[in-house]
Amino acid sequence: MKRTSRDIRTANRYGVLRHIVAESPVSRQDLAAATGLSLATVANLVGELLALGMLVEVGYEDSEGGRPRGLVSVNTSGGALIGVDVAETYIHVELFDLAMTVIARAEEELRPGENQPAQVVAHIATAVAFVVEQASVASERVLGVGVSMPGQVDREGGVSVYAPNWDWHDVPLLGLLGERIPYPLHLDNPLRACTVAELWFGAARGRGDVVVVNLGTGVGAGLALGGALYRGVTNSAGEWGHTTLVLDGRLCHCGNHGCVETYVGAPGIMQSLRELSPGSPLLHPDDQTATIEALARGVADGDPVAVKVVKETARYLGAAVADLVNLLNPEVIVLSSWVARLLGQPLLDEVREAVARHALRRPLAGTEIVLCPIPSNPVSLGAAAFALEGSLASVGQNTARRTTARQRSTPS
Amino acid sequence: MKRTSRDIRTANRYGVLRHIVAESPVSRQDLAAATGLSLATVANLVGELLALGMLVEVGYEDSEGGRPRGLVSVNTSGGALIGVDVAETYIHVELFDLAMTVIARAEEELRPGENQPAQVVAHIATAVAFVVEQASVASERVLGVGVSMPGQVDREGGVSVYAPNWDWHDVPLLGLLGERIPYPLHLDNPLRACTVAELWFGAARGRGDVVVVNLGTGVGAGLALGGALYRGVTNSAGEWGHTTLVLDGRLCHCGNHGCVETYVGAPGIMQSLRELSPGSPLLHPDDQTATIEALARGVADGDPVAVKVVKETARYLGAAVADLVNLLNPEVIVLSSWVARLLGQPLLDEVREAVARHALRRPLAGTEIVLCPIPSNPVSLGAAAFALEGSLASVGQNTARRTTARQRSTPS
Repeated sequence: MKRTSRDIRTANRYGVLRHIVAESPVSRQDLAAATGLSLATVANLVGELLALGMLVEVGYEDSEGGRPRGLVSVNTSGGALIGVDVAETYIHVELFDLAMTVIARAEEELRPGENQPAQVVAHIATAVAFVVEQASVASERVLGVGVSMPGQVDREGGVSVYAPNWDWHDVPLLGLLGERIPYPLHLDNPLRACTVAELWFGAARGRGDVVVVNLGTGVGAGLALGGALYRGVTNSAGEWGHTTLVLDGRLCHCGNHGCVETYVGAPGIMQSLRELSPGSPLLHPDDQTATIEALARGVADGDPVAVKVVKETARYLGAAVADLVNLLNPEVIVLSSWVARLLGQPLLDEVREAVARHALRRPLAGTEIVLCPIPSNPVSLGAAAFALEGSLASVGQNTARRTTARQRSTPS
Repeated sequence: MKRTSRDIRTANRYGVLRHIVAESPVSRQDLAAATGLSLATVANLVGELLALGMLVEVGYEDSEGGRPRGLVSVNTSGGALIGVDVAETYIHVELFDLAMTVIARAEEELRPGENQPAQVVAHIATAVAFVVEQASVASERVLGVGVSMPGQVDREGGVSVYAPNWDWHDVPLLGLLGERIPYPLHLDNPLRACTVAELWFGAARGRGDVVVVNLGTGVGAGLALGGALYRGVTNSAGEWGHTTLVLDGRLCHCGNHGCVETYVGAPGIMQSLRELSPGSPLLHPDDQTATIEALARGVADGDPVAVKVVKETARYLGAAVADLVNLLNPEVIVLSSWVARLLGQPLLDEVREAVARHALRRPLAGTEIVLCPIPSNPVSLGAAAFALEGSLASVGQNTARRTTARQRSTPS
């Protein structure tokens, strides 16, 4: 989408708050240096956040002979944010303070087949009410709830457009949740939640152009370009799992052949294992997690089948990641989600080698490839960050309205 | 790269001037509406451009009962810009006025083997001097010269890092040109020149996220994201020609197998023709242009071999373009450069069908696929636009210096 001046103001507000969350306490001067914004712009944004109670003044630092510089810090008790990770078998909910520290958690298990919208909504509402109560947070201090829903979502309309695992079509999820949850609600999907988590708290913080490669059952590439989440014209960017890697290759559930996902998603890795060693004890036919865990243990123990499967997976993944390096020339590529977490360093090492074989020298020289550095669940963290961004964006709207009102009352 | 507030100011200045170039005369109010900037920001930028003599006030328009609105227009005689398209067999130079109308042209032929840096520099200098004389433009009115050099370039250093056709390595092209040409010089490559031409004058003007697919001897994808050229962290983004389309497929000159370029670049199309019909009279073994022209005529005449080769090319191209749709969810994809121009509408029709077969429904619904609408040479036009952007960026620096000086002189 084309960036308007309001988008830019909102993005600047995110950038400043992101830096304060990470580096509290911090001076306006350091914020200006770290964000590339002018001191005047930073002072305005900090003033706005102080007025909202999201920041507090916390004293002064010596500035080597100059005037002492005022320090600001996040007002941890200035608000609470809730992140909801809706997955196939569970709903995970976390409540954060404004420093994005987890204050309370809840997990609701979904029994097989328990996936009707009314059932899922009831579980989410129960878990949200539970964390608010557990954290003893006053209702008016909950700034918002971010909900990560797998599949395609219409975030403006709050609709789950298509959730392949549950065969949901056009479910008005936020509308249903709004009848049960009295806080501002924000909807998006796990790919973008993970990417925003990297922007706020992970490998993309303070970096320019970053690609977050999500390796789970499904596969995608979240894009953080120019320091902001890149969504594309209809919020559908990142469907990198359906890049054709092998023309006329493996059949994908999207109807095409040879998609990246059919080789490096968990079911694709299981198929590679099955093809290489049909009766392998590493294979748990109905359990993706158990199989990937068995492969990770196998690699650690030097099991030749496990080593070969991971090498083969890295060969496909490396070719596909090299395409991202060549096309986007990013500063960082992050391998994220549960398959990357379980296979860890051995996968990373093989992928780095495979990418070096495939990518062009010049773009490759500028790109670092890393594992996701976020120790907690990046999806609920990212969902909470969406809620934080939502509350900052609505601040912008309120400020704009106030300014307009004031301008109107000035005689002209 | 992370966007700083100066980048944003410069991008806003481009956006405003772009709109004025296209829509002159225009009011500040219409500019604000078209660019999404505030009226105050637009008024500042317009004031800056007026002071520089790049714009002129040209009267008032009625605003339906309100105050009459001042109109501004490009000051066509306020400056001249030169664009240089360095190709394998020729150097094409155009001089533009500030409305980006061509005032003078020159073309220098390069004889086979005539590709030493000193020879190329001499030809460029001759052609540049010729167009300035032909246009009767005073030296001080030439705002800059943009040079498009194939291959990898270091634009800040003005170096041709690697030009595969001529086997140039680290040639300090702008340094050499600076000894012969007394105007500000700006270096970049044809892929980015074509993309900037689309941003200023073509299918990307006023649009959000656009991909310019360049089909020539080489193949690339220029990215215009959020209304600005996307360069990546080391100015190497867009090497989409080296995306792996067929794992273990055709050998590419980059050393890999199955790159997009080996199927849809001119030599790749010739190989497809050779494989399908080894003795075809359509094939001119040593002449890419003649072969593609023969294919285009063959398709028009219903020649089954020509139809089949274009269909096959579109099948590969469609799969690869679908990957761009899925990953970037752009508003527009432009098919540009000489192969796209020669094969034209029949190629476009086949590509649209092939993309529809491969891309996911939701991102596809937001994407339009078009042929490059620029009637003249987009490379020299884009190179001149780089010169225009360069002169606007240096305006920004001068303004910033003046502001700083003024701030320093204010007692505090």
